[in-house]
Amino acid sequence: MSLADTIPCLSEETAPDTRSRILATADAYFREIGYQKTTVADIARALKMSPANVYRFFDSKKAINEAVLERLIGEVEALISEIADRPGLDPTERLVAAIETLHRDCTRRCEAFPRVHEMIEAAMAESWDVCRHHVARITAGFERIIRDGVARGVFEAADPAEAAACVHAAIARYTHPVLVGKSPLQPAPSVEAMTAFLLRSLAPRGPRP
Amino acid sequence: MSLADTIPCLSEETAPDTRSRILATADAYFREIGYQKTTVADIARALKMSPANVYRFFDSKKAINEAVLERLIGEVEALISEIADRPGLDPTERLVAAIETLHRDCTRRCEAFPRVHEMIEAAMAESWDVCRHHVARITAGFERIIRDGVARGVFEAADPAEAAACVHAAIARYTHPVLVGKSPLQPAPSVEAMTAFLLRSLAPRGPRP
Repeated sequence: MSLADTIPCLSEETAPDTRSRILATADAYFREIGYQKTTVADIARALKMSPANVYRFFDSKKAINEAVLERLIGEVEALISEIADRPGLDPTERLVAAIETLHRDCTRRCEAFPRVHEMIEAAMAESWDVCRHHVARITAGFERIIRDGVARGVFEAADPAEAAACVHAAIARYTHPVLVGKSPLQPAPSVEAMTAFLLRSLAPRGPRP
Repeated sequence: MSLADTIPCLSEETAPDTRSRILATADAYFREIGYQKTTVADIARALKMSPANVYRFFDSKKAINEAVLERLIGEVEALISEIADRPGLDPTERLVAAIETLHRDCTRRCEAFPRVHEMIEAAMAESWDVCRHHVARITAGFERIIRDGVARGVFEAADPAEAAACVHAAIARYTHPVLVGKSPLQPAPSVEAMTAFLLRSLAPRGPRP
């Protein structure tokens, strides 16, 4: 698929349409050419509009990246939220599924778009709130699963919020685009082995003999 | 301290001296100016020698980086190896000390030299063996601690090598320069909370009632 195919057609349109066309075009450029090499002028040219018109909607490339990331991140968060609250799966199965989903989603995006990590690195450098809110929302999904597991007696955690943050931080090697995208070959145990190791930390203890 | 202060003096010298002066100069440039912006010509100019003379010792900037990293990495590995085999500390204390040491060393280097992560990223992109051996040697230190803990009955791990690899991968957020250097503010539990979470996974289980 060429970049041109991903850019929405010009038509008579409203402001929200223009805004979403800018985002779709920026998204395609950031993924294919990379965040660093894409300019606001590139995005404007692809849309046959002036850079000044782009700046009517977004005051910087940073602001465009934040909006592009919000959308991408929103998709991942919806997946995790759905798993966290899925009926019919026990808490262990939900935790396994949530980790597996984050890992697969990250790996898939990094393989399909080898420059996607540039968008995340730019956000890590200059858009702290976007990163912070994303970490908080994914961790909140883990926390709901762990709290439910504690309530059902299948997990034990004195502080489910902290346990959730630990699980989330511990899987960075498998779910953080900066590590997954840049070092797909870096030696590490399988995600299944890591998940089993983390689940062991959450397992209830019998009283010691 | 200026960059010039870190460059060794010219003197009549042997080939090993020249090699180590090239490494010390490259090291200073990579830390201060960054791996990307440093050229072999910069290193040669600082040493008042020709680039051709540098190439007599190292056939590429990549080869220089590998030698610089081997030295830096060797220091970290020696620290961890010493802790892993330290008499008088029990296995839990040794695991805590090893994680704390890796975290403190990484944080200190990233704070002192904000561009140090470029050297590591370059190695991740083009010097796989250096990365792989480093991960293997640090993980081997964790494995010795865990095996000793299993032998003494203070840890339980069906596969100590895999448990060691999981502990090492789980602390990437605290010990990998690409995450520590680029996102010192990224939300995460304290390293102490993470260590306690991982130790819980290694704790022996009493038989369930």
